[in-house]
Amino acid sequence: MDQTFELGDLHLQSGETLRGAQVAYRVYGELRQDRSNLVLYPSSYGAWPEDIDWVVGPILDPGRWCIVLVSQFGNGRSTSPSNGGPALGDGGWPIRHADNVHAQRRLLEERFGVESPALIYGWSMGAQQAYHWGVLEPERSQRLCCICGTARTTPHNRLFLRSLRQALTADPAWNGDGFAGVPEQGLRSFALIYASWAASQSFYRRGGHLDLGYADVESYVDQAWLPAYRRHDARDLIAMLDVWLGCDVAVAAGIASGDPQADLAAALGRIRAHCAVVAGRHDLYFPPADCAAEAALIPNASLQVLESDLGHRAGNPRDSHAEQAQLRAVVEALCRR
Amino acid sequence: MDQTFELGDLHLQSGETLRGAQVAYRVYGELRQDRSNLVLYPSSYGAWPEDIDWVVGPILDPGRWCIVLVSQFGNGRSTSPSNGGPALGDGGWPIRHADNVHAQRRLLEERFGVESPALIYGWSMGAQQAYHWGVLEPERSQRLCCICGTARTTPHNRLFLRSLRQALTADPAWNGDGFAGVPEQGLRSFALIYASWAASQSFYRRGGHLDLGYADVESYVDQAWLPAYRRHDARDLIAMLDVWLGCDVAVAAGIASGDPQADLAAALGRIRAHCAVVAGRHDLYFPPADCAAEAALIPNASLQVLESDLGHRAGNPRDSHAEQAQLRAVVEALCRR
Repeated sequence: MDQTFELGDLHLQSGETLRGAQVAYRVYGELRQDRSNLVLYPSSYGAWPEDIDWVVGPILDPGRWCIVLVSQFGNGRSTSPSNGGPALGDGGWPIRHADNVHAQRRLLEERFGVESPALIYGWSMGAQQAYHWGVLEPERSQRLCCICGTARTTPHNRLFLRSLRQALTADPAWNGDGFAGVPEQGLRSFALIYASWAASQSFYRRGGHLDLGYADVESYVDQAWLPAYRRHDARDLIAMLDVWLGCDVAVAAGIASGDPQADLAAALGRIRAHCAVVAGRHDLYFPPADCAAEAALIPNASLQVLESDLGHRAGNPRDSHAEQAQLRAVVEALCRR
Repeated sequence: MDQTFELGDLHLQSGETLRGAQVAYRVYGELRQDRSNLVLYPSSYGAWPEDIDWVVGPILDPGRWCIVLVSQFGNGRSTSPSNGGPALGDGGWPIRHADNVHAQRRLLEERFGVESPALIYGWSMGAQQAYHWGVLEPERSQRLCCICGTARTTPHNRLFLRSLRQALTADPAWNGDGFAGVPEQGLRSFALIYASWAASQSFYRRGGHLDLGYADVESYVDQAWLPAYRRHDARDLIAMLDVWLGCDVAVAAGIASGDPQADLAAALGRIRAHCAVVAGRHDLYFPPADCAAEAALIPNASLQVLESDLGHRAGNPRDSHAEQAQLRAVVEALCRR
């Protein structure tokens, strides 16, 4: 079950204050007395902890690690539009990953007495948070495992996100800062867009959806993708998109250091952690070339490409042992450093 | 200017009859007395003739060829929902590419006295029509240049098309078979989805949109992509999507031959033409592997990959000389055969 950490007033990257901020988290495994075995595992887009805690065991051994899975702001468990958090507003949702990092740092320190986690493990928006840790907390970040994500959202990725956001706000139920009801039509567009980007052409070419028991791509979307997003408050879906759209370690580093000229190279150059940059061979929105370009700017990074046709989801292979084995090997190599 | 060819009643692949069918066409160059130099150039999605006739000159020499550019059904010039053609209806728009081929065959025969064009040149939905010519009219098809398209719409490509269709029908203006006004919100989703798929990650990574003079991807979509689709009657946009969704030479061949068991290999095996299968290296919805898989089933096909970061639009390189030169070379090699 989720535990809650009360942050009180949180000063945000935007300059605003988030009143009564809360983060939800779950703990797997035991913290050693010397507190040296904490793994921070921030959540990905649209994920609740129970969706992604399969990693405990197949990838992260709870006999060795104390794994702290933290819900990112906006996911409906930590402070979100759906539970009294900031409204969406004209400029979009005001949270940035720097705020997630800030909240996680306080959680680890104040609740666990840990200043520096042994590993930060994240997939997709989780990888974005891991990069922000490396840049904003270089002395506290020992090892980063950044899977299928980038430290700055690319122009191409923005288009995907804009299309998702627009799909929701195009719904008749949208009223400018929320929804008068469930945006059924908008969610249907959203699910179709998501399903087309998050798998890969190769996955569908070999009939991956058929192997999963669906008659065609249309029923795959209706029965698998749509319910996964429909269960969320649609405002939360938009909030998380806004955090993703705003993902940029250069901006975060510039504000943190008072130097607004900080560029991506300077920001990534701040990272002191050993960093595993992991890309999916057929990831359509974080393609290997984008991950490689960032890895080249990180002092202690190694690039690994997951050989898989699962597309973006190669980095979250709940049901696929081959990809799990690749990720386990990445984590093991990283933890020997 | 468009000329019109009156087809009268056209018997459709669906079994229905299209009353008072018309195709619009334009002619470039002169037909030789022996009528051996006619090139058929069927239109692509959302294209009007004036959008795609730049090909005349840079790719197809009007001093050598008589180029007949034919508007496909649904584009707003030939019979379409917007000009009195069939309504969209519950089962979608009833036209299939076999019907385009049927109309074009009659146009060439009855207006030009040509049974067998020297070349059929098509990009995207134009390539789909070229493949249908090869399969349905094997004795009349001498050479096919099929650029960035497939003979059967793949499952992955279906998702892209379904997301576009759903984006339009999610608009509050949709009333079940048409629109009460311009679907502004739906068109905005549509343009974002289209722009994200039709270029490539590499294009945006190198700042292709900046080179074109746009400040960011958002203004690129607003100023370049949205107007290109907004000028159409949205019913026509859906009609052409339905033709694309229904693109399948195996179904067409099965109905034409009375053998509903005809599969893709059997259908493509019917092609007698010399066939240039041209794929774009970074085409996201007709990726090279899909084109290669079909080329392997065509007796006299050669596969060529356009080296370009323009994505799907590498096959319609209005403003890019490097890709034009590659296409010109493909056509020249094909016409030596």
